Amino acid sequence: MASYHKPESKTIQELKDIATKLRIHSVRATQITKSGHPTSCSSMAEIMSVLFFHTMRYKVSAPRDVNNDRFVLSKGHAAPILYAAWAEAGLFPTSELLNLRKFNNDLEGHPTPRLNFIDVGTGSLGQGLSVAAGMAYVGKNFDKSSYRVYVLVGDGESAEGSIWEALHFASYYGLDNLCVIFDINRLGQTQATSLEHNMEVYRVRLEAFGFNALVVDGHDVEELAKVFHEAQNTQGRPTAILAKTFKGRNFPNIEDELNWHGKALGANGDTVIQHLTSLLKNPGPLALHPQKPLVADAPIVDISNIKLSSPPNYKLGEKIATRLAYGNGLAKIAANNSRVVALDGDMRTSTFSDKIRTVDPSRYIECFIAEQNLVGVGIGMACRDRTVAFVSTFATFFTRAYDQIRMGAISQTNLNFVGSHAGCSIGEDGPSQMGLEDLAMFRAIPGATIFYPSDAVSTERAVELAANTKGICFIRTSRPETPVIYKNDKALAIGKAQVIKTSSKDQVLIIGAAVTLVEAILAADELAKSGINVRVMDPFTIKPIDAAGIIKNARETGGRIITVEDHYPEGGLGDAVLSAVAGVRDIIVKKLAVPVVPRSGPTAVLLDAYGISSRSIVTAVHEILKL
Amino acid sequence: MASYHKPESKTIQELKDIATKLRIHSVRATQITKSGHPTSCSSMAEIMSVLFFHTMRYKVSAPRDVNNDRFVLSKGHAAPILYAAWAEAGLFPTSELLNLRKFNNDLEGHPTPRLNFIDVGTGSLGQGLSVAAGMAYVGKNFDKSSYRVYVLVGDGESAEGSIWEALHFASYYGLDNLCVIFDINRLGQTQATSLEHNMEVYRVRLEAFGFNALVVDGHDVEELAKVFHEAQNTQGRPTAILAKTFKGRNFPNIEDELNWHGKALGANGDTVIQHLTSLLKNPGPLALHPQKPLVADAPIVDISNIKLSSPPNYKLGEKIATRLAYGNGLAKIAANNSRVVALDGDMRTSTFSDKIRTVDPSRYIECFIAEQNLVGVGIGMACRDRTVAFVSTFATFFTRAYDQIRMGAISQTNLNFVGSHAGCSIGEDGPSQMGLEDLAMFRAIPGATIFYPSDAVSTERAVELAANTKGICFIRTSRPETPVIYKNDKALAIGKAQVIKTSSKDQVLIIGAAVTLVEAILAADELAKSGINVRVMDPFTIKPIDAAGIIKNARETGGRIITVEDHYPEGGLGDAVLSAVAGVRDIIVKKLAVPVVPRSGPTAVLLDAYGISSRSIVTAVHEILKL
Repeated sequence: MASYHKPESKTIQELKDIATKLRIHSVRATQITKSGHPTSCSSMAEIMSVLFFHTMRYKVSAPRDVNNDRFVLSKGHAAPILYAAWAEAGLFPTSELLNLRKFNNDLEGHPTPRLNFIDVGTGSLGQGLSVAAGMAYVGKNFDKSSYRVYVLVGDGESAEGSIWEALHFASYYGLDNLCVIFDINRLGQTQATSLEHNMEVYRVRLEAFGFNALVVDGHDVEELAKVFHEAQNTQGRPTAILAKTFKGRNFPNIEDELNWHGKALGANGDTVIQHLTSLLKNPGPLALHPQKPLVADAPIVDISNIKLSSPPNYKLGEKIATRLAYGNGLAKIAANNSRVVALDGDMRTSTFSDKIRTVDPSRYIECFIAEQNLVGVGIGMACRDRTVAFVSTFATFFTRAYDQIRMGAISQTNLNFVGSHAGCSIGEDGPSQMGLEDLAMFRAIPGATIFYPSDAVSTERAVELAANTKGICFIRTSRPETPVIYKNDKALAIGKAQVIKTSSKDQVLIIGAAVTLVEAILAADELAKSGINVRVMDPFTIKPIDAAGIIKNARETGGRIITVEDHYPEGGLGDAVLSAVAGVRDIIVKKLAVPVVPRSGPTAVLLDAYGISSRSIVTAVHEILKL
Repeated sequence: MASYHKPESKTIQELKDIATKLRIHSVRATQITKSGHPTSCSSMAEIMSVLFFHTMRYKVSAPRDVNNDRFVLSKGHAAPILYAAWAEAGLFPTSELLNLRKFNNDLEGHPTPRLNFIDVGTGSLGQGLSVAAGMAYVGKNFDKSSYRVYVLVGDGESAEGSIWEALHFASYYGLDNLCVIFDINRLGQTQATSLEHNMEVYRVRLEAFGFNALVVDGHDVEELAKVFHEAQNTQGRPTAILAKTFKGRNFPNIEDELNWHGKALGANGDTVIQHLTSLLKNPGPLALHPQKPLVADAPIVDISNIKLSSPPNYKLGEKIATRLAYGNGLAKIAANNSRVVALDGDMRTSTFSDKIRTVDPSRYIECFIAEQNLVGVGIGMACRDRTVAFVSTFATFFTRAYDQIRMGAISQTNLNFVGSHAGCSIGEDGPSQMGLEDLAMFRAIPGATIFYPSDAVSTERAVELAANTKGICFIRTSRPETPVIYKNDKALAIGKAQVIKTSSKDQVLIIGAAVTLVEAILAADELAKSGINVRVMDPFTIKPIDAAGIIKNARETGGRIITVEDHYPEGGLGDAVLSAVAGVRDIIVKKLAVPVVPRSGPTAVLLDAYGISSRSIVTAVHEILKL
């Protein structure tokens, strides 16, 4: 271990003063907005002081510089003290802190990347550690750089399982550039936490999960400086600082008392500020300043304009599962850009994320069966544009991480999701494995792009497009093999549907994707025998949906649309199409979808039993023609 | 501890034979269906044999008898061996096992309660322990009965954070009637698990989480019998049996080998069956039979026909938050039925689930900040109709448990969900706390009922209706106070909308709920001043939506509908209304909804900024009148 030099007593005093100043800022700001969490700020004031003014290395003027140490505030409700730390560090005037929570001010109730010093939104508890672990994984394995990652976790949120998934991940991969600080202030929102100040239980659990676990008085700046030094010099495993703290520390009559969570101090505010001010030895400007990075050793990377290394190479009519085509596309973009990475939850041979290992095994990150952490790590890896990350598992298992996905949108992440085994077409494994709500889930994510490619050619193009598209992208893939319907040079675009079958006499527009597009084509052929022509459309993306194309084709087919999807009736393709035509009179839509929890059985039997086979489509066409 | 008597050697031999028979059944069934997980079955054969034929007490003829010990197979993919155990126990002929995974046979790929010996569906990993903990909580605290709960967890799924949430819950509440068995067979789907056979790490982690942790050779029936006995006699804390096992045990050339996950044995099947058969000492009928419960000490409970103890008691126009009315309704049904319980994740003073504590503190179960376990425990508590359970947190934090909710539908649970703090109307806390995708999430759950009550009276009725409605119910409540619009004796029904404002000259139908219903009424008053009459409707339930009422009223208002919702545009009220009118020509719909990730700010400012205030509704009316 590099030898530890105790900070000078002057430094110690300044760090104490900074902690007090951060408390004062937190109280003042929340007094004005009459809401917020000043007591949750106060418990971590010394931690913030030592981190931001003694331990961490970063350029205040360039908060997202790649060489900076990272800091993630997992307990996002303590936002005011994070804002205060950056203001005291010099990024913006401290007077700005008084605009906390005002509309159109970026100092929101919980941190979001609208602020240039925030990488990810926090506020849904228990998510910050996974994100930080993703950043640390990139720092250690891809950037091979000296920046470190700090994440502050509340004791209340340590009950979240996602924390334990992330702890296991971090120790398994030996992320010694990661330091997690637990702010153990004993009190939750409505009552004491389950472990209160039982520091030994925390220590034993963290040790058991592979961490260098250090218990410390979280209000002693000297002790904190020492353990952060130890963390910096611990190799082979990450460090957890277990800081015993008190909620509302140094707030007279409020410290360590219940019923002070999530509220401004009201009539007590003045007394508290007075008391805090009396604690300051030096109320004037600071002599201490944050330390810059020692070296700028993070490489410059370019993740723009990512292309398939070679065009799709399939034969028309050849049967290929879109999940396999995903693997092919992934390998091709990975071959062309060294920053393309793939993460999976022990499903790589089913999702075909496995294929990236043929290009570079080091760019596959096994996250084991822990989907919340899988997504959180992915968000962390995509931060600051360090990688183009794809996370995959069965489509339905992304429900496990819906909160992380939702927060990903708030975090402005560019993470790409690939969900395989869509719908009842997976067959015998039964409903627990079938993705039947994934489209609904991702459609309700602001700014998301949803690809539902119908063949191998369009799947490879979806991968390429996703890699270059901002915001969350979701690619839905299927288990069964389906025929290639596009030529290898087919041009495809987001929000542009493709008409697969058309004539001048079409009476109905049928919109399906993947397995149900196959059924739609079968139905069209069957109907043609009895003289009924129908048009068949592949939407390619469900969000955005090609409203103009759908309306134009619907008008040409008597204003009759049938949607057919291997998904529950709500929130998916049918609802997307309904929204597209909502404002147009004289268009009717009939939704075919899986109406109930399916059973196990062969694919063809299930498609038919749940009303999304060619037989059901033919019946629906006859019915809609009567309307 | 009650003294342990080693089983007779004859019994030991029979238990070994049963394990072998269960293996043979698992192989035979998966050979026929050519899919499934025989190797995952084989690792746990001795555990199943000892549990079902030596340790557990249950009536084979009445698998859901309240006095039976419970068994949950968390690793649901090992379904064949669970089916085999019940067949060998005598519930149905073993020949039936060969119908595994056939369509319309209930022996599905993963277990569901379509089978009378299954309480909950499993197959999404890591969920069984929370459910089992919920059952054990009821057994210990409400039934005060001697039945015990066993749950078998795979080592792969132990990476799921939900497992660690559940472990913490079980030890915190001292559930010594719970026994969890970890089947540590070393191999996941695509590679070895992260901890492989490192039994000591498992032991230390389980000890750290408060369990009586016992490491055992999982293929030694005698050792197993002994540790199950110890578990039965351990007081004050739950027991974890850490069973070291081998995947594909006793399958020559397959045991402990990779690449045998989730597949039938194919050409190896005959050899394996031959080898297994050669291991049988007694291939004939068993002398061992399951043990019946020693006592029938679980009380008879009646959870039917639950009523509010007194009708709603509000004044028209009085301002009451629907979240508070939820608390009032909850307390009233709890006063009338001793089996009404409430669970929350450290939010009880915000969701007002707190109110049940005024009736009976013991019927409030604090689950701390761990929403996956919160929902899982709720599902467990509702099993076998032992309780009427309500789980609450902020609406958006149910995204954390979407996988559990989805599996809840497969499990045919009657659990009730109450999500507060819907939409951007919560104000300054910002987007991470706003429920803006909850309607989309619950709409895509088969059989779910979604209440979105607009005032205090209808909220209390929603609580009463939910308590008596099968399937998943979701009640969406709001933070701001909104005026009471219904008289206390108002009759409300699921799927029945209420017209709030009407005239014979209405030109547009406006559908809103809670805060947006208030805005719709304001807009209607404003428009009336300029001679434009609009009709205003409260849908009360979003699923089922009152299609007939909406179509009738739309036809009377020029076929023009405006929906206005404090939710993202996809999957919510607007899409539900679109689906209701999809098949009717000449109706148009304009959706007003929150189009982007909102910011922090005051409620009124946010409603206006995101286009769902009365001002936006007025503009939308003018626009739709042109169409």
